[in-house]
Amino acid sequence: MAAEPFDYVNLLRPDLPPPAVKWTGFPKYNFVGGHNDASSVPVEDLAAAANTVLKREGRTLSTYGLESGPLGYRPLREFIARKLATDAGMTCTIDEILITSGSLQGLDLVNQVLLAPGDTVIVEQMTYGGAITRLQRLGVNIVGVEVDHDGLSSAALKIALDDLQRRGVRPKYIYTIPTVQNPTATVMSMARRTEILGLSAEYGVPVFEDECYADLVWQGARPQAMRGMSNDDRVIHIGSFSKSIAPALRIGYLVAGWPLMSRILAIKSDGGSGAVEQMILAEYCPAHFEAHVRTLRKTLRRKLDVMIESLRAQFGEAAEFDDPAGGIFLWVKLPDRVDTTRLTQLALQSGVSVNPGVEWMTEAGAGQKRIRLCFAHPSEQVIREGVARLAEVCRREFAVPASGAKEHR
Amino acid sequence: MAAEPFDYVNLLRPDLPPPAVKWTGFPKYNFVGGHNDASSVPVEDLAAAANTVLKREGRTLSTYGLESGPLGYRPLREFIARKLATDAGMTCTIDEILITSGSLQGLDLVNQVLLAPGDTVIVEQMTYGGAITRLQRLGVNIVGVEVDHDGLSSAALKIALDDLQRRGVRPKYIYTIPTVQNPTATVMSMARRTEILGLSAEYGVPVFEDECYADLVWQGARPQAMRGMSNDDRVIHIGSFSKSIAPALRIGYLVAGWPLMSRILAIKSDGGSGAVEQMILAEYCPAHFEAHVRTLRKTLRRKLDVMIESLRAQFGEAAEFDDPAGGIFLWVKLPDRVDTTRLTQLALQSGVSVNPGVEWMTEAGAGQKRIRLCFAHPSEQVIREGVARLAEVCRREFAVPASGAKEHR
Repeated sequence: MAAEPFDYVNLLRPDLPPPAVKWTGFPKYNFVGGHNDASSVPVEDLAAAANTVLKREGRTLSTYGLESGPLGYRPLREFIARKLATDAGMTCTIDEILITSGSLQGLDLVNQVLLAPGDTVIVEQMTYGGAITRLQRLGVNIVGVEVDHDGLSSAALKIALDDLQRRGVRPKYIYTIPTVQNPTATVMSMARRTEILGLSAEYGVPVFEDECYADLVWQGARPQAMRGMSNDDRVIHIGSFSKSIAPALRIGYLVAGWPLMSRILAIKSDGGSGAVEQMILAEYCPAHFEAHVRTLRKTLRRKLDVMIESLRAQFGEAAEFDDPAGGIFLWVKLPDRVDTTRLTQLALQSGVSVNPGVEWMTEAGAGQKRIRLCFAHPSEQVIREGVARLAEVCRREFAVPASGAKEHR
Repeated sequence: MAAEPFDYVNLLRPDLPPPAVKWTGFPKYNFVGGHNDASSVPVEDLAAAANTVLKREGRTLSTYGLESGPLGYRPLREFIARKLATDAGMTCTIDEILITSGSLQGLDLVNQVLLAPGDTVIVEQMTYGGAITRLQRLGVNIVGVEVDHDGLSSAALKIALDDLQRRGVRPKYIYTIPTVQNPTATVMSMARRTEILGLSAEYGVPVFEDECYADLVWQGARPQAMRGMSNDDRVIHIGSFSKSIAPALRIGYLVAGWPLMSRILAIKSDGGSGAVEQMILAEYCPAHFEAHVRTLRKTLRRKLDVMIESLRAQFGEAAEFDDPAGGIFLWVKLPDRVDTTRLTQLALQSGVSVNPGVEWMTEAGAGQKRIRLCFAHPSEQVIREGVARLAEVCRREFAVPASGAKEHR
């Protein structure tokens, strides 16, 4: 028999988030999270790469730094430098690239070197939920700026920067997801990028550019990264292999000039990011990355089409959305009378998991009519069934869509 | 031409550590860090495991949770549960095991849920340098308690707990490395473990037990883990595969009861620890772990013998140390007139890297006569040459060892 369990309650930090609940498996219709298409994982090629690189260099696992130093496995940094030059119009040396445990660690590291409680940051009003919760936990002031069909609004950004300047506040950064914005899936135009870089220079506020979805633009031609467009280190860039190869690999990267990188490196006290995964990617990518992502994009586009078709069939005009320029999610607006936070809870009881809009917005108001639907992981059949179930729940609770909606295709 | 680089200085958090210096490769005689014996990395078997598990389950990499949930890959947790039951006399369910990115992440997670600035923790007066720097960065009060040949002194611990209680301070935990203490390499007796658990109960202070070296006791029979000896969750346990398989894998684990685990899990926002490494270990370990570690221990013991022999030959009586019970390091006391911090700097100029004692102690004073020498990574020849060079530098600067020392064997 166990004794009365030791009570940690009075020993906990006072500002912790609520405890996790026990994990009981994924819901049947899983439209949340950055999961990807399972059959697209290049299993055979990854296994071959693992076998080759481990046999050739496995002994280097005996050192933390893999004989490449704390920035990460050198051949992987070399591949990333070549890829960014080719795909993102961005020149960087391998000393400006840090391999991170997913781009999430990039977010954490940048936050850790720049942010103290009470600081102010600018983010897109609709943005990645994980970025918002991180900033909330750090106790910083979050200023949300409007996003339109072209991404972060430069006009709204100027107003926000002006307003902060008048109040004597210099924000620590402008966080943006320019290419396949999360959740709106827009791709920011070059003109808009130029305007935002101009405002960054004018107000002396760096841009923190999260390009973790940039490989997934349908046509394959992503615009130049904002870091590539500037030449003075004012843009901090993060990217990832989570969306292009597999999320469970936990390999991302951060690009910054040495003055900032040297501060980031000084607080990256994790003993390095996972070495085997770095080695496998470095072995796999030069020969296979481009062709793999080309095929993956087609698969994702096909699944998106199924998602759109299902939404049209089930919700008719009640579901409004733009056709995404790439990525793995759809940002859907439902009629005013639908409380999507409540819809999310009810849908989960029917085995359908979606992100309520409020989690992806800096201000709850407008988010209450939105949901975010990830389509990369579920099969086409699961997408169809899940959207039908979601519509069923929504109709029962909110009378949306109207019963006749199915005929309105 | 690059423009004038953007100046981040005024945007940085005020309390950052100094910037990192550019990495220029390992020194020739590298006696620091938890690196391991390169030829002992089981390269062929790891490659085979990678190949098998990736082909069988590689598609699950498409989800963050590998279909095992946020605690980590289930087969690896199952192996760890069996291993801890057999080797460490510790029963736990797989819901009490969290896979971490090295035991360092275990340290960070426990610190993050328990510690706020101004809190107090008890640690061994000589302890892992990375634990000390982490605590310093968190702004907590560190109370160092004496370590003797039996590990953390229970008599000194009682005095410290008494003193804190009188001042109305309840420390957040007692951090100890019971098996192959770092840096003293002692193994705490069962009697001492019992005494410390008794004090933990008496004063209501949990024990935070770091067993990352416990697989490397020369005879193979590690004592029961303190968490195994208590039955009320008062002991938080961390362990690692870094020392037994390879440090670059970055796979460790944390064992705690669900009330605490659910708080830890809520702040582990890294998208999971590296999946491929978890899968490879889970595939490799059941068949190979035990035999591998048995062989590794012999290799390490042999290298330690070379290190001891070299120190005797070069330093004679001037170098004092106990024969370690296991592990990868030797904790050496030099005569009073040697300033080991200065010795460390001078030795590095001769290509010899050692840890100065002050980095591994909570109070600088006594540490100034100590150095920590890791012997697992360098070859036997490098150990001999490196110790000779170290003696040369030490003799030149501090007249220690006396010139005749080599004859005193």
